[in-house]
Amino acid sequence: MNLDRAKFGLILLCLEVLIVLLFTIFVGYDLQADGSHEKHHVNPSQGGLRPQANTIVKYDSMYQDVHVMIFVGFGFLMTFLKRYGYSAVGLTMLLSAVAIQWGILCRGIFHHDDHGMINIEITSLINADFAAGAVLISLGGILGVSSPFQLTVMVLIEVFLYSLNEYIGAEIFKAIDVGGSMFIHAFGAYFGLALSRMMKPTKDINSTNEAATKTSDLFAMIGTIFLWIYWPSFNGALASGDDQHRAVINTLLSLSASLLMTFVWSGILSHENKLDMVHIQNATLAGGVAVGAVADLMIRPFGALIIGSIAGTISTLGYVYLTPFLKSKLGLHDTCGVHNLHGMPGVIGGIAGTIMAAMANEQVYGNSLYQQYPARAPVQNSSEFSEIVNEFADVEPGEGRTAASQAIYQLATLGVTLAIAIVGGSLTGLILRAPVFDNVPLDQHFDDVYFWECPEDEEKTKLMEANKNKGLDNRTFDFELGADSDTKNVASQAL
Amino acid sequence: MNLDRAKFGLILLCLEVLIVLLFTIFVGYDLQADGSHEKHHVNPSQGGLRPQANTIVKYDSMYQDVHVMIFVGFGFLMTFLKRYGYSAVGLTMLLSAVAIQWGILCRGIFHHDDHGMINIEITSLINADFAAGAVLISLGGILGVSSPFQLTVMVLIEVFLYSLNEYIGAEIFKAIDVGGSMFIHAFGAYFGLALSRMMKPTKDINSTNEAATKTSDLFAMIGTIFLWIYWPSFNGALASGDDQHRAVINTLLSLSASLLMTFVWSGILSHENKLDMVHIQNATLAGGVAVGAVADLMIRPFGALIIGSIAGTISTLGYVYLTPFLKSKLGLHDTCGVHNLHGMPGVIGGIAGTIMAAMANEQVYGNSLYQQYPARAPVQNSSEFSEIVNEFADVEPGEGRTAASQAIYQLATLGVTLAIAIVGGSLTGLILRAPVFDNVPLDQHFDDVYFWECPEDEEKTKLMEANKNKGLDNRTFDFELGADSDTKNVASQAL
Amino acid sequence: MNLDRAKFGLILLCLEVLIVLLFTIFVGYDLQADGSHEKHHVNPSQGGLRPQANTIVKYDSMYQDVHVMIFVGFGFLMTFLKRYGYSAVGLTMLLSAVAIQWGILCRGIFHHDDHGMINIEITSLINADFAAGAVLISLGGILGVSSPFQLTVMVLIEVFLYSLNEYIGAEIFKAIDVGGSMFIHAFGAYFGLALSRMMKPTKDINSTNEAATKTSDLFAMIGTIFLWIYWPSFNGALASGDDQHRAVINTLLSLSASLLMTFVWSGILSHENKLDMVHIQNATLAGGVAVGAVADLMIRPFGALIIGSIAGTISTLGYVYLTPFLKSKLGLHDTCGVHNLHGMPGVIGGIAGTIMAAMANEQVYGNSLYQQYPARAPVQNSSEFSEIVNEFADVEPGEGRTAASQAIYQLATLGVTLAIAIVGGSLTGLILRAPVFDNVPLDQHFDDVYFWECPEDEEKTKLMEANKNKGLDNRTFDFELGADSDTKNVASQAL
Repeated sequence: MNLDRAKFGLILLCLEVLIVLLFTIFVGYDLQADGSHEKHHVNPSQGGLRPQANTIVKYDSMYQDVHVMIFVGFGFLMTFLKRYGYSAVGLTMLLSAVAIQWGILCRGIFHHDDHGMINIEITSLINADFAAGAVLISLGGILGVSSPFQLTVMVLIEVFLYSLNEYIGAEIFKAIDVGGSMFIHAFGAYFGLALSRMMKPTKDINSTNEAATKTSDLFAMIGTIFLWIYWPSFNGALASGDDQHRAVINTLLSLSASLLMTFVWSGILSHENKLDMVHIQNATLAGGVAVGAVADLMIRPFGALIIGSIAGTISTLGYVYLTPFLKSKLGLHDTCGVHNLHGMPGVIGGIAGTIMAAMANEQVYGNSLYQQYPARAPVQNSSEFSEIVNEFADVEPGEGRTAASQAIYQLATLGVTLAIAIVGGSLTGLILRAPVFDNVPLDQHFDDVYFWECPEDEEKTKLMEANKNKGLDNRTFDFELGADSDTKNVASQAL
Repeated sequence: MNLDRAKFGLILLCLEVLIVLLFTIFVGYDLQADGSHEKHHVNPSQGGLRPQANTIVKYDSMYQDVHVMIFVGFGFLMTFLKRYGYSAVGLTMLLSAVAIQWGILCRGIFHHDDHGMINIEITSLINADFAAGAVLISLGGILGVSSPFQLTVMVLIEVFLYSLNEYIGAEIFKAIDVGGSMFIHAFGAYFGLALSRMMKPTKDINSTNEAATKTSDLFAMIGTIFLWIYWPSFNGALASGDDQHRAVINTLLSLSASLLMTFVWSGILSHENKLDMVHIQNATLAGGVAVGAVADLMIRPFGALIIGSIAGTISTLGYVYLTPFLKSKLGLHDTCGVHNLHGMPGVIGGIAGTIMAAMANEQVYGNSLYQQYPARAPVQNSSEFSEIVNEFADVEPGEGRTAASQAIYQLATLGVTLAIAIVGGSLTGLILRAPVFDNVPLDQHFDDVYFWECPEDEEKTKLMEANKNKGLDNRTFDFELGADSDTKNVASQAL
Repeated sequence: MNLDRAKFGLILLCLEVLIVLLFTIFVGYDLQADGSHEKHHVNPSQGGLRPQANTIVKYDSMYQDVHVMIFVGFGFLMTFLKRYGYSAVGLTMLLSAVAIQWGILCRGIFHHDDHGMINIEITSLINADFAAGAVLISLGGILGVSSPFQLTVMVLIEVFLYSLNEYIGAEIFKAIDVGGSMFIHAFGAYFGLALSRMMKPTKDINSTNEAATKTSDLFAMIGTIFLWIYWPSFNGALASGDDQHRAVINTLLSLSASLLMTFVWSGILSHENKLDMVHIQNATLAGGVAVGAVADLMIRPFGALIIGSIAGTISTLGYVYLTPFLKSKLGLHDTCGVHNLHGMPGVIGGIAGTIMAAMANEQVYGNSLYQQYPARAPVQNSSEFSEIVNEFADVEPGEGRTAASQAIYQLATLGVTLAIAIVGGSLTGLILRAPVFDNVPLDQHFDDVYFWECPEDEEKTKLMEANKNKGLDNRTFDFELGADSDTKNVASQAL
């Protein structure tokens, strides 16, 4: 055992031990998942309804959809790099599993009972998946240039900041963002981009491995399509009733429009007016990101189409013009183009959320206005509150906000999200430059060989040696394996 | 920008603008998705039940399953062609997104409220996916030989005719077809085949690219297996209660039997008695198509097995004998063999639906007879109707049809479906022959290069030039890229 | 038609005819799926609730998740072999379809109504999928070395024994095992291993085809990830209320911990401390297996993490140390390492179930103690029973077992499971050695060519002949096709 190479495994082991300890002390079941709770002492005549009323029934189906998006969606979307497929799916699994366990603990800092216990139920798992989503978005920015050790440290820091930011936005500012346009997408993207900027301030990343093959592109499309399919569940998972119903409809429509606009602009702007697979894999999803903050609101079907059209357009234009510009001018490397898929559409979502908040009134939402925007309900004991309670049923007292003040809080949440993401990502990037976290050597960027046993490479080595003995050329294998130019030169000289 | 090549993008842009305009004028939320509706003014004691009662809860899970079938199922099923994978998944996404938006509008022509508004909810999305299904079946018939422009025009025409035909069958003739054996599968298949026949009346399609590799076949199996898995949801999505329960059971059994029979006949009839991947990818699904029209009826478990066995048998025999015959005798090209998977099994489903309608009675169905076949309920104010309302609960007055007359309407629906599909498809094919819609050059059939930027081809060009300079042979790349014989000869001569 | 080669197809045909006959005589719909049942004669005021109350609503979503695991999960997990992808997905489909139909009949031997009728509903389909799961685990042990005929016979025997064992354990011993740690995983694994041991007592399996490529490994990851995602539904599918809620939470946590520990040990113990794809594909899932028997119990979140950590550790260690040892010492071939993924973790689950049974009391479970462990409820007419019925609602009389006696029954169930699996698997292996069941020739092990038409091989043959005529070398194609060393020598000599 090489201790330097085994270091990461040992640290991961310590992390899991720590997690188990913290779970032992702090984590229990919520009443919905607890067998000992008195709800079991029910009247026989109502007994038969109990299992159906458990919240697992309401949430599980959409939870599993979100789960597919995190693991299959993000995982396979990132397999587009021709020599980095093991890492794409493997890192997705590793980082998500860390983020889920760590996310339950971090969220628990801000949401616990009076005894300090974190009582988990099915929505805890959905929120943990959302935290994993933010992490995977950040990963997309630095995919192929970071070591597993660096990324695991990133997860620990990012998930804490993610939970903090969500607490500030949702609990203190009482902003709403049902699909996480701000909390998940904008946060994950700008965190990752700031980190990317800091980790590689001078080096020029330029590898022939940063490219796709038709096979790797098809694997990536598995990810794209599952993300596209299940995005209505992502945006609707935590909503209820007609809010959830709208979230599904609006998200589908926004996605459909952004898909169409991606084909429009990719066809118009790409080389020779042919379609570019990078656009199709990514910008088709921008409508799901952008509609996230308003998916459950009364944006009307045409509103969803317009948001999706704008998002698909801006995202594709971003891939064509902005990414090359940022790379050449700012030295900003963004492997998957998360700025175009998550960053800008997330900001669009935040702005849309501000506009909708400014326009929301009781005529359009009925009493669900006060469920959508709890801070807009009148304060307790006010005459306005009594009036509303008389007319509508299930309303909790709020802060008596006007539409305008709710809109300002929505905008402030977007601002705070960007600030925490950029400052947090930059500091994390600085930390991760320390050699102790294992920098990936430049010649192993975008290459699984850095930390995976790779079958072809073994075979290649064996065959190249065998051929050398026979005096044969090795050019064939270089092409097959997509070897970089150095090896190619060696091989040519061998001829 | 080459205007001729950018033309399609610009037209797609105009289409999306048109769709947004039409949605703005005509499309709103159904009450189930509308926040302003008075249902929110409820009694507090009932308030807690409201969200659970929203129809999104009932339909969403199966909707997402159907959505997987449309995008992953059909999309990957068509990746079996070795050089057409980008197109298979990309066209599936594009055409489905158009079909979903356009389908909501076309269906709205026949289903709108008194003010002409189309009020959408979750079943609107399921029906839109069904329309996309019909379109993708037609695509299967002409996959690889049509341009995106031609296909988009096809979608616009086909989805309108699809909605018209479904209106005639389901609303006027009051025929039932819960899984769309007639409305989706037979319609989509014969529309596509008629169109294929018209578009290529004389040309002989014969390309070495119309073939699979082991990798492309495995991608196709992703499609096959997801279709197979979720077909019970497809046939049961719009059913309720014990009808839905039967739809799931019957569809699973029919699929299982058709899967087994496909292995039987592929093993017996294929070359050297080895299994043929084309059969396994397609005929295994024929049981899902054929049982569609009767999935929710009392066909008994053995009935489902028999329908599946017949469908799997006929579908496999179709691939072995009929497709080559139609190609050589009628010049009918059918890339995916949709005649065997959707055409004939769809007709079998229509016939099974006729037989079951002729046999349906109150003894077997109880009062659900009049839910299954609403036209069989006695006419309003008749003594028969009073009698039934007394015995059974929730029955609406109908047309007092006998079993025999219902069977005749079922058969008439099959006939009308075939007529509209064949005439409509033929006319569409005639229209699409106009050069303005971009015909695919013969040497680019079944090849992504027609409208995709392809990574290997760029690499190939670059490397071949580099090698030419060095005097090396290029044969390796030809094989790797599955080049056709012309290139191969050139390469050989270069040696 | 070569009758010897067509034999398997003809026998499969006879099997389907037999199944249809048995279904005709013995299988009907359960009341939940039956249209004629009197529940339709309901009071109008309750009528609206009926469809929602049908059990299809409760079970369908998780059923479809389990279905994905069986077909996509197991099917693609086994595509890791570079030349056996068609067989992996094709055999999964064939054997599962047989197991589902046959499983309904075999389970019906032990669960039928007073008239001997097997009345099926949605949980029958879940149970049929579970039987298919056991079969596919066994397949994993002998993947690549058995003919379809041998495997079909295996399914017929194994599914009967599976149903018998589950009847003994669950009905007679009244042991609980909600996720099938014992009934599915341990049973399937040890049945397959015993069979593998018996079928190949002396031969040394050593093929260059028993290896992966990066592409085949990525296909396998599709399987792994879908299994990982949907395992909470697998363990929770047949549970209800807070039990189901816990099953989902505990399974996710156990999986997350086992995923992390797999990365830990793979990184520490693999060659050069790089990660081994075989571990990631398999041991990450061990937590789902091991927690199966206790997923719905009050193991607390940290308990789930500990079980998962142990399972991931033991599973990875098994791949590193035990599998090579068993192969060299016992001649035990285990293609997918099912002993590490299903065997040992299944036994861990059985032991965990015993410990939890010994610790279960009314304080922790409330009255759900008697729902979890029905045999622990006091016997009818006893004073203890009257007392409990007074305090709690829906309790059925049981056998008055103590915690200790329930624990002993749990352990006995594990023992009986292992005994039936090992003896049954060994006898089946002996039977399958008969030449009539088609042994796979040694040089076609792990190779699709044994019973599939393979596109590359046709192309290879054609091109090699063409090249031979031109005097070119064929080395390129060998590498491309992963040919074994013999062909390579021939090709080299051709140079």
